[in-house]
Parts: sequence; structure tokens; C-alpha cells
Amino acid sequence: MALIVQKYGGSSVADAEKIKNVARRIVRTKEAGNQVVVVVSAMADTTDELVKLAYQVAEHPHTRELDVLLSTGEVVSSTLLAMALHSMGHPAISLSGAQAGIRTDAAFSKARITDIDPKRVAKEMEKGNIVIVAGFQGITEDMDITTLGRGGSDTTAVALAAGLKAKACERYTDVDGIYTSDPRLLPEARKLTEISYEEMLEMVTYGFKAIHPRAVELGELFSVPILVASSFNDNPGTLIHKEVSMEVRNKVRGIAHDPDVAKITVVGVPDQPGIAAAIFVPLAEAGISIDTIVQNASIENITDLTFTVAKSQLKGAMAVVEPISGSIGARECVSDSKLGKVSIIGTGMQYAPGYAARMFDTLKKENINIQLIATSEIRITCIIDEARIKDAVRALHRAFELETED
Amino acid sequence: MALIVQKYGGSSVADAEKIKNVARRIVRTKEAGNQVVVVVSAMADTTDELVKLAYQVAEHPHTRELDVLLSTGEVVSSTLLAMALHSMGHPAISLSGAQAGIRTDAAFSKARITDIDPKRVAKEMEKGNIVIVAGFQGITEDMDITTLGRGGSDTTAVALAAGLKAKACERYTDVDGIYTSDPRLLPEARKLTEISYEEMLEMVTYGFKAIHPRAVELGELFSVPILVASSFNDNPGTLIHKEVSMEVRNKVRGIAHDPDVAKITVVGVPDQPGIAAAIFVPLAEAGISIDTIVQNASIENITDLTFTVAKSQLKGAMAVVEPISGSIGARECVSDSKLGKVSIIGTGMQYAPGYAARMFDTLKKENINIQLIATSEIRITCIIDEARIKDAVRALHRAFELETED
Repeated sequence: MALIVQKYGGSSVADAEKIKNVARRIVRTKEAGNQVVVVVSAMADTTDELVKLAYQVAEHPHTRELDVLLSTGEVVSSTLLAMALHSMGHPAISLSGAQAGIRTDAAFSKARITDIDPKRVAKEMEKGNIVIVAGFQGITEDMDITTLGRGGSDTTAVALAAGLKAKACERYTDVDGIYTSDPRLLPEARKLTEISYEEMLEMVTYGFKAIHPRAVELGELFSVPILVASSFNDNPGTLIHKEVSMEVRNKVRGIAHDPDVAKITVVGVPDQPGIAAAIFVPLAEAGISIDTIVQNASIENITDLTFTVAKSQLKGAMAVVEPISGSIGARECVSDSKLGKVSIIGTGMQYAPGYAARMFDTLKKENINIQLIATSEIRITCIIDEARIKDAVRALHRAFELETED
Repeated sequence: MALIVQKYGGSSVADAEKIKNVARRIVRTKEAGNQVVVVVSAMADTTDELVKLAYQVAEHPHTRELDVLLSTGEVVSSTLLAMALHSMGHPAISLSGAQAGIRTDAAFSKARITDIDPKRVAKEMEKGNIVIVAGFQGITEDMDITTLGRGGSDTTAVALAAGLKAKACERYTDVDGIYTSDPRLLPEARKLTEISYEEMLEMVTYGFKAIHPRAVELGELFSVPILVASSFNDNPGTLIHKEVSMEVRNKVRGIAHDPDVAKITVVGVPDQPGIAAAIFVPLAEAGISIDTIVQNASIENITDLTFTVAKSQLKGAMAVVEPISGSIGARECVSDSKLGKVSIIGTGMQYAPGYAARMFDTLKKENINIQLIATSEIRITCIIDEARIKDAVRALHRAFELETED
């Protein structure tokens, strides 16, 4: 008998009918001979409504209290799902994150899981119960309730699967898998049957919103295969795992894109030790996340330093950088807020040459100017004009033959 | 520094503005030099909405899960109130019933408090926190969440006040005190400044909805004075306590009424041992609550047995009693569903004669027929035609001079 951890997102438990639908899916998994532990998110808009209430009573809601408040959303959906299962004749029990042994640090609203103690979960499984765990929450050493921040319920599910040594973690939402590119942008995008943890991480970091990177990292760390599929149909999903078919398949797995890029260039910087620190330490202190950093080769000890930030942070970043730019003797400080990025991603690229060349050539043929280039072992990213993103994605998808099966 | 436990009902925390209003009241109590522990109910309609959701997913919601579900309502309001206090500069912390040490039996949906372990509450008070406890809930030995059923938050508040040896328990709702009769029925009804536990118990049992009898019983048991007042104004409320001014004041304290009375008479019953048991044991097994029971004096070994039930239970009670009535040789079984009761209540009555006579005479002068009479040491109840309740209450209120001050 295999143990499966299933996770259902907010849209999958948005109302009573959808909760009953989820219960039927769980019953099917059980009747196929599996033990099932389920992690649920809060019903659709619940969390937003609770946050709204909090800001109505306090301008800056106290973080410890906010976490207790938000944790009720997942408790509600977990009890409703347990009731639905009971009424279908299948014993089930809901557990809060605390009861399920999800231990976290005390960083309210963005707590990290420090440990899983799934004793109670195991005990309830032994009694024959389907265990429904409220996602997105845990408990500190001091018995305070915490929430895990973005991607929290995915993280709960993968962590529980690791702690219980489950065969797999199945993650159900209204999206039925991982595509070679965003299907809303590119209708010919094709669903992948499998993808490696590393590739998935690069894809979510570079524009795919399908699953939170924390959950993927945790899956990789504990070798938990993660199936991404829809709760509204039985289409096969995408399996995120340590891939076995690496050698034989197409080396580019997906084209990621992200329209949220702004660029700042500090022009004519004297090339001295400590200049980068002089710029990036104050930016970090101001809470501004830097994405790509590129420093041009120095010509006669004068260099240009370019970096990108999210568009919403451009104004704040310029306010930090402009005074510094004067004090370190740079010529000027310019910005461009109408950019985006496209990335090609695939683990095979690191061992096969020519991918970068084919990418640049494809963009050139489309007359798309490349403003910045950044690479990792399994990804090549080009910063381009935001208005050309769709053209770039389509051309790259075709150039790397992503519309055809592996 | 005195310790005060305050309890705010659902209408007092119905929205963000009302929650802020409650926070300001708490701050005033604190700034007057008191330590404050607060118990809150769920925001106005929350509990009803959660119950509705439960019945949408399951015909008979599992009781353990239903209790966990309903307990979230009070957690939400307690965190919001703590946030509101924080934002006014007063450190506060919300605790669930479990965290506040409210231990109960495992009778889900109607659990009884078995023990209070207020260590955590005391610890948070020492730290200078205003402690906000989610009412209506507790936890079993097996760490399952329970709810306390009707009057649950009142019971939490009085139990905590007892456990913390608080000076008083102040209970705030949209009603500003205990009146000599229902002010909606009788505009001349007068608010009492004080009332004894016993009188209050008789009044709530015989038609006053102001506070749940469980809370009053607990208050009496642990000698916790309970102030009933409004959260929407500063009118003085009514103090429920061991009264000191018993000897000097008007002996009748209030006129209770209840229009929800149906009567069943089993006519011509052979007067033998075991007849009452033959009728009332099956009724209890069918879950029917019996109120007043009267057996007429037996004439030639034939007697009439009359009892009253809530109107909604009349049909069920007749279905149980009619077949039994045949088998025990009774002549017939008749019912009347258009009845109500009026009661006069006051601790002084037990030592002073003439109250019953004055009550019966008053009703006679109004031409109101008395169908049944039942008494306790401090109460006299008459069952009358439902249509005459208002006349009876008004006449009795005047006859016992309740419109004038003590």
C-alpha cells in the first residue's frame, strides 16, 4: 500500500460542490489501494477577506495575530473536506498544522519549516483515517501559530510527504501541468509529462507561476516526486522529479518569460575595489531585490554597472542609487522601465554547445534587440523590449521545436 | 490592581468599527488601573454561516469536525480585537480556548468545562499583555477541539474569572441589563441594579434570554459577580451576585414570560406505581424535554397526568404518548398548543406569604384562566392562554409594583 500526499489549492475547494468533488477524488485514490494524506489551502478568497478585515481594524496588523487570523482559513477548508469524506462513508480527520507537527521558526507571515513531527498523522492513518492537514501553517517552539507565506501550502505538502516518506506528492489546482511556455501567451505550448527539479526551479524563478520554488527545492532535497495536475479533470499532469530520460530528449524544456523588468545603469564608474558593495549593500538595506547584475569589461579603469529590479521597485532603487552614484564619481545613472525577459531552460544545455548561439540568432532574425544576457548552467536569459516578449517566446518555442513531443 | 474578565458578544464585535469600539472600552478599563482578560464571541453571523457551509458539504456533519470548524469564528474575532488593541498602543495577545487552558469533556457541540488551567493567561498578563480569549471552545484530554454549545462564551468568561480569581466578570452585549420584564413587551419594565444568582437562574429558565443559565450557575458556584451591560453605551448594567440588600427590597424581582408552551393531558389513568415512568422514560429516550408536570389528586384510583413541552416538540411527544396511553389503560390523550407561561420571581417570596394569592387574584381580575400552576421556592408559574400573556405580564408588573424603584 503506497502513501500519497495530495494537495488541493484554493480554487479546488472554493465552494461546497468543489469540496465534494475533491472528496470524491480522494476516495478514488484510496480505493485504488493507497493511503492518503491531504493538505488543503483556504477556500478561494478567504485569505484575502481575512487580510482585508485585519487592515480595517489596524493600520499595521500585529504579525503574530495576523498569522493566527489567517491560519483559520485552512482550518475551515480542512474540516469541511473531512466532513464531506465522512458523509461518503470514509473516516477522515482534520488536523491543524500544529497538530500535524509542522514546526517552524518564529518569522511570522513567512515562517520556515524547521522540523516535521508527523506522529499524530501516522497515528490517525493507523486508525484508518484519511488525514486532512490545514496547509500554510505551523507552530513555533513557544506554541505560537505561524504562517508560511507564499507557496505555503505547497511547502506543507512536500514537507509532509518527506516526513512521512510518501511515495509521491500530488498537487492539484485549476492548472493541469507544466507547459513548455505560458499557454495563455502561446496556444501551441505543450504540456510536459516530466521535468527535473532544477529545470522547474529555473522556470518558476524566471516567470512560471505554476508552483512555488520553496516546494520544488524541498522536493529536490528530500527526493519527493511532485505531480502537478488539475482537480477539475483527469488529464495526466506533469511529474517533477529526478529525471531518468535526460539523455534522449530535447534539451530545451521550456521558454519562460516575465514582463516585470526595469533596468538601472550606473554609467562611467571608476573601476575600483568596493564599488559594487557601495551600491548593492544600501539597496539590500532598503529591501530592494536585485535580479540580474552585469558589469561591462573595464576600459581604462572606467566601467558601466547594470542591474535589473522589479518595476515596482525602480523608483525606490533610483532614490538609493542616484546619490551614491555621485559620491563614487560615476558619470550618470539611467533607467529603463519598459523591459522584460525571456529564458530558455533545460538541464541538457550544460553539456551541449550551440544553444546560446541559436537563441541569439533567433532573436536577431526577429529583429529583437538584446539588452542584457545572463546565464546559469541550465538557463539562458535575455532582457529585451517588453513589447517584443510575445514575438520572442513564439520564435524561440519554434526554433527549439518545443511544439513537438520529446 | 483588580483583575476584570470582560466578555463581548457577537453583536458587539460584528464589524471592524465595533471591534475598535470594544478595544477602546477595554483600554478605558485598563487605564482605570485594572488588569483585563477579555473573552469574545464570533462576529455576528459567522457561526451561522459556518454551520450553513457544513450542511452544504454533509447531510450530518461529523461532530468532531463541526466543532473545529465553528471554533474558528471566535479565533477570528479574538485576533482582530488583539490587533485593534496593538494599534492603539496596548500590547495584547489572542489565545484559543485550548491555549487559555479551557479543558472540557469530549461531548462535541455541547462540551462541559471540566477544568481551567490558566497558566498561559497568567503568564501573558505578567508580561503586560491584555489577554483576549476565544470564547465558546475548549480542548479535550486527547487534544481535540470542542465547542461548549449554547451560552458557551458566557460560560468561558465566568469559568476564566473563577480560575483567575478575578474581581468580577463583565458581560457586554447589545442589551444593557436585566429588566423587571421584557421591555419589548412592556415599555414600563425597569432595569434592575442587582439581582441574585438564584433569581437570575429562575428568570432565564422561565423566559429571559439575557444570559445563559450555565454561566449563572457557574458564577454562583464560584461566587463570581457578573455585570450584564451594553457595549454600545455607558448606562449602568445589572449586577448578578449574592445580594446583600435582600431583606429591605421588593420581594418580587421580575415577571418572566414564555409563549412557547404546549400541554398534553393523559386523561383517566389508573393510579398505579410505574405509570409516570411508563410515560416519561420513552419521552426522554425520544429526546423530548418535559417542562412542568402536574398530576391531579387521584379520585377512585383514576388520575389525570398533565405535562408541558415546547411547541415544536408537541407532535413528537404525542406520537410517543398516544400508543402508551392505550397500553396503560388511560381513557384518552388530549393536547393544547396555544399556551404560554408567566412567572413571578424573587428570593424573598419563600419567607413571606401571600405572593401566590396576589398573583392568582390579579389574573382573575383580568379574567385570565389559569390552566396549570407550578412553583419553586422563589418562583410561581402559571400556564395560561398564549393570547393573554401580554395582559398578564402588565397586570402582574403593576400588582407587584415593579415599575417603582426598590
